[in-house]
Amino acid sequence: MDKVKHIALLTSGGDAPGMNAAVRAVVRRALYEGLEVSGVYHGFRGLIEGSFQKMELHSVADIVHRGGTVLRTARSEEFKTEEGQNMALENLKKANIDALVVIGGDGSFNGAKALTDKGFPTIGIPATIDNDIAGTDVTLGFDTAVNTVVEAVDKIRDTATAHERTFVVEVMGRDSGYIAMAAGVAGGAESILIPEQEVNYDDVCMRLERGYKRGKVHSIIMVAEGVASGYEVAYQIKKRTGMDTRITVLGHIQRGGTPTAKDRILGARFGAKAVDLLLQGQKGVMVGIKGDEIVTHSLSEVLSTKKDIKKELVDLANILSI
Amino acid sequence: MDKVKHIALLTSGGDAPGMNAAVRAVVRRALYEGLEVSGVYHGFRGLIEGSFQKMELHSVADIVHRGGTVLRTARSEEFKTEEGQNMALENLKKANIDALVVIGGDGSFNGAKALTDKGFPTIGIPATIDNDIAGTDVTLGFDTAVNTVVEAVDKIRDTATAHERTFVVEVMGRDSGYIAMAAGVAGGAESILIPEQEVNYDDVCMRLERGYKRGKVHSIIMVAEGVASGYEVAYQIKKRTGMDTRITVLGHIQRGGTPTAKDRILGARFGAKAVDLLLQGQKGVMVGIKGDEIVTHSLSEVLSTKKDIKKELVDLANILSI
Amino acid sequence: MDKVKHIALLTSGGDAPGMNAAVRAVVRRALYEGLEVSGVYHGFRGLIEGSFQKMELHSVADIVHRGGTVLRTARSEEFKTEEGQNMALENLKKANIDALVVIGGDGSFNGAKALTDKGFPTIGIPATIDNDIAGTDVTLGFDTAVNTVVEAVDKIRDTATAHERTFVVEVMGRDSGYIAMAAGVAGGAESILIPEQEVNYDDVCMRLERGYKRGKVHSIIMVAEGVASGYEVAYQIKKRTGMDTRITVLGHIQRGGTPTAKDRILGARFGAKAVDLLLQGQKGVMVGIKGDEIVTHSLSEVLSTKKDIKKELVDLANILSI
Amino acid sequence: MDKVKHIALLTSGGDAPGMNAAVRAVVRRALYEGLEVSGVYHGFRGLIEGSFQKMELHSVADIVHRGGTVLRTARSEEFKTEEGQNMALENLKKANIDALVVIGGDGSFNGAKALTDKGFPTIGIPATIDNDIAGTDVTLGFDTAVNTVVEAVDKIRDTATAHERTFVVEVMGRDSGYIAMAAGVAGGAESILIPEQEVNYDDVCMRLERGYKRGKVHSIIMVAEGVASGYEVAYQIKKRTGMDTRITVLGHIQRGGTPTAKDRILGARFGAKAVDLLLQGQKGVMVGIKGDEIVTHSLSEVLSTKKDIKKELVDLANILSI
Repeated sequence: MDKVKHIALLTSGGDAPGMNAAVRAVVRRALYEGLEVSGVYHGFRGLIEGSFQKMELHSVADIVHRGGTVLRTARSEEFKTEEGQNMALENLKKANIDALVVIGGDGSFNGAKALTDKGFPTIGIPATIDNDIAGTDVTLGFDTAVNTVVEAVDKIRDTATAHERTFVVEVMGRDSGYIAMAAGVAGGAESILIPEQEVNYDDVCMRLERGYKRGKVHSIIMVAEGVASGYEVAYQIKKRTGMDTRITVLGHIQRGGTPTAKDRILGARFGAKAVDLLLQGQKGVMVGIKGDEIVTHSLSEVLSTKKDIKKELVDLANILSI
Repeated sequence: MDKVKHIALLTSGGDAPGMNAAVRAVVRRALYEGLEVSGVYHGFRGLIEGSFQKMELHSVADIVHRGGTVLRTARSEEFKTEEGQNMALENLKKANIDALVVIGGDGSFNGAKALTDKGFPTIGIPATIDNDIAGTDVTLGFDTAVNTVVEAVDKIRDTATAHERTFVVEVMGRDSGYIAMAAGVAGGAESILIPEQEVNYDDVCMRLERGYKRGKVHSIIMVAEGVASGYEVAYQIKKRTGMDTRITVLGHIQRGGTPTAKDRILGARFGAKAVDLLLQGQKGVMVGIKGDEIVTHSLSEVLSTKKDIKKELVDLANILSI
Repeated sequence: MDKVKHIALLTSGGDAPGMNAAVRAVVRRALYEGLEVSGVYHGFRGLIEGSFQKMELHSVADIVHRGGTVLRTARSEEFKTEEGQNMALENLKKANIDALVVIGGDGSFNGAKALTDKGFPTIGIPATIDNDIAGTDVTLGFDTAVNTVVEAVDKIRDTATAHERTFVVEVMGRDSGYIAMAAGVAGGAESILIPEQEVNYDDVCMRLERGYKRGKVHSIIMVAEGVASGYEVAYQIKKRTGMDTRITVLGHIQRGGTPTAKDRILGARFGAKAVDLLLQGQKGVMVGIKGDEIVTHSLSEVLSTKKDIKKELVDLANILSI
Repeated sequence: MDKVKHIALLTSGGDAPGMNAAVRAVVRRALYEGLEVSGVYHGFRGLIEGSFQKMELHSVADIVHRGGTVLRTARSEEFKTEEGQNMALENLKKANIDALVVIGGDGSFNGAKALTDKGFPTIGIPATIDNDIAGTDVTLGFDTAVNTVVEAVDKIRDTATAHERTFVVEVMGRDSGYIAMAAGVAGGAESILIPEQEVNYDDVCMRLERGYKRGKVHSIIMVAEGVASGYEVAYQIKKRTGMDTRITVLGHIQRGGTPTAKDRILGARFGAKAVDLLLQGQKGVMVGIKGDEIVTHSLSEVLSTKKDIKKELVDLANILSI
């Protein structure tokens, strides 16, 4: 393969805070190395539609602290077809683009892999608030999302304490309890329900009642949406204890917001590394972080591995909420 | 009536940020004047149960910045009965308490008025995030709640922009559109639906479509819960335009949180004035703010007046969201 | 005078949060009325240099929540001269501009008045974090600045409490103690030193020592820069009591940041009203807020009046910090 | 050694956000295991004075989100003497305390080591915003401090952009550039000056001028206090380029504030592990985090090792700020 001269980048799937920091780093690292850079708008749909725009240093000025993604994001059913992918490849070729950086989650990496399988070099940057991607300790956006949830829980606790009530807080996480677990430990939740563990409402109720006997005046139950809705949890508690609870569904505020320092730095490191990998002739790999080191794994490996939740955190949650 | 020597205070109804600032001011102003002060726990229920605690300077140290209320709050059905009120009066008498400051909303002022009607001096401090109390430009907690909603909208807008979608945001306000209106103007919402105005979904849809034609990539519809649920609004938009929207119900995070500077200062001014009024021998009145001046109105007047929303803000919302 | 058809607007002097909300409102209100609108870059310097840019609806999209000013700001010595002002008028005439909205503080209004004195219609919008402009209860940016200071004080109190130390916090305000007073009351400061009152270090020390005797473990002294530097205050306390204090100078963080809901709404109301006034043929006036009503005063009156600090707040500060 | 039955804990040195989360975890983990727990007030001074207080579950309720430390902190010259240490040991013995958890930085670990050298079991938890302790990727409080600095830089950038000026921001770090480096990368600083690297003002000025030529309208120079004061940096830039800059010294706000989710979880993990280690009969070790795993090192090793700053971050900072 010839040396990469012109790279493109896109963001895809749900937006995650820190995506802009990654975009900035890809663009600046590439320009620093003398490459040409094009931004693709609206994710894979933009590849099919040929929505490319040349990126300069100033294109990414003053975006490091912004939530969302300046490249926009979208879902594309068409790209899942052979025909859509071929159209994308044609557009990339016509624009003289040699390689593509894909910033997103699982679904996005399926798209990236499809292109690499057809011979077009891609690098993946894991960005999703859910932290459900193997091959990296954390994904871009997770730290900000957890802090957003914790801030909300701090607010809810004010009210829970004032009224001496139990609150059920439903957070994002269809298949993954990472947000619920991290925010639950940080927010001092009494019980944390995650998809990785079988839910035991009797245990939840036992903990609640033990706490109230001991003089606890309020309780917070954190539940990942993949386990049950907040309403279902409230119903199960009511059925067993007769206790009324209040329900809050945090919803879309979890996706947005100014990224934390950690997500900005992670985005910067991921972005710079993605360009380095392309310059080294690599493709079909995802950057990740293991401890404090940037690592890489093949997209195939990432896509076929299920990430487990840390047992230590689960145990810790139980101990701290006595 | 003899001069007041010992006052009590309670918080009642939904908690509101700034209640603690008011509690602090009542206690310190009263101690400064040489009065004795007792805190009543759990609102009017605490009067019936005689949950009184003597307050000293240090009892209110380091609480000015805390959400919720250190005196806790509760609803009491019993206090609505003659019998409950008499028990409360007996407890107040036994504890040698001469007067009571009630921090809360409409329902709480009904309770305060009942006591005053029976000859026991009370002063009301309007504290509710809804801002639906006549006789004051703003209630304690409203400024913080609006800022909380605006921060949430700023986060949602990140995601709305990234995905180029329309979001429906449901906020508190059963009978009052104050939060929706203020947060909608501050957050740049495209349409704001409030109980004070008949809802016109055709107009909402016309504005949405006009915006999209003009190149707007995202829209936010703010709706007070008293108008309709976010789900209902989404359904009405879908029915008329076929457009999918996303829904966020902000819920209980609107009640809590560190009070803004404005709510802390308002709490301080209200609290100090309430004590001054008792020292002047007044009773059955509520403190309020009109412009930048502290004013007073009788509780009867306050309870029989409906507060209207400012027409100027409604018009402004329409103009700015073109 | 003919009806206004094309207006320009500029921001000038120190930046203040909410300026962008005012810019947005001027532009949208004017476009709504069918006017042409031009933005002037770099304040009065831009008038002299003819840095005009046509503003459309999208020019002010997504700026309502941003600190600073998209029109930039600068100081211009040249505009203080007859020659500079004539050049500005010529440029305005060449661009077919009929009227000008000036968003800024005292210095900026001198400039606006100079143009109006020469026959060119101007309207002033008071925007400065110092709140030192007569004719309005509050200026644009003040509420945000106070909240920024209060958040900093909340952080400093954590450390002050942990170490049981006294902290001196120096805030902005050369001639005006508004920020110090509001943030001091909201932040629970033990003493507040403002330019409007003679400083009495003996009293400061008496209060400190009284507090410590009573068991207070930390104290915060708030001082406006116009009174003395934080270092001077620390020296005076040390000289009298031997007590070591820590000093924090808050500096430029007070100017920036996402505007509060209140500053966004105020910016919106001021901006819309400024356009209305021009449409009514008014000139040489400043918009302001009195209570909850938008009011107007002539620039001459505003510039010749000194704004006093509210006595009630000063007394309140003394009572609450016992 | 007999099994540990009664442990004590103290916080020492500068306070750091997350200390309370660690205190909570030590107490709850210990009570969960049936141990007795005593809190020591005012750090090592409290050991000498015997300021012990029994801790129950409720002693640590509602503290996880608070900055500072509920156990207070202080410096103690007396504890550095043989006599002071003996008095401390006597007090610990009298109170039947078997082991001590020390939460703090380098200086605190010297104290802990002294006790262990005399036969009394201690475990160290690294807590300092400076992140200058070997044996752990990060220290407790660092993440919060960096986010505090980044928020301040975001505010300063608003003003820097509005006025098109260069700002010098001085942050904490006498011997360590960790805060400056992390906040500089996350905040998009143009130059970052740290004690680990020789400062090159010519390079700083070259980067400034290159940026301005390219159209950058503002610049931020981040400097750790150990390199030079902000004033010195401003002077050196002025001398070389004639350019005026503005200076902000962030000061004590860097220490306080609500801890981030990460610092709360880290505090929880460190605290629980410290108790586990004591139950296993370990002593004279510090807990730390390496990647995502909790690790331990002997206090001697920790105290004799200098922590280096990550080369990758330094290079990244240079690339991203082109």
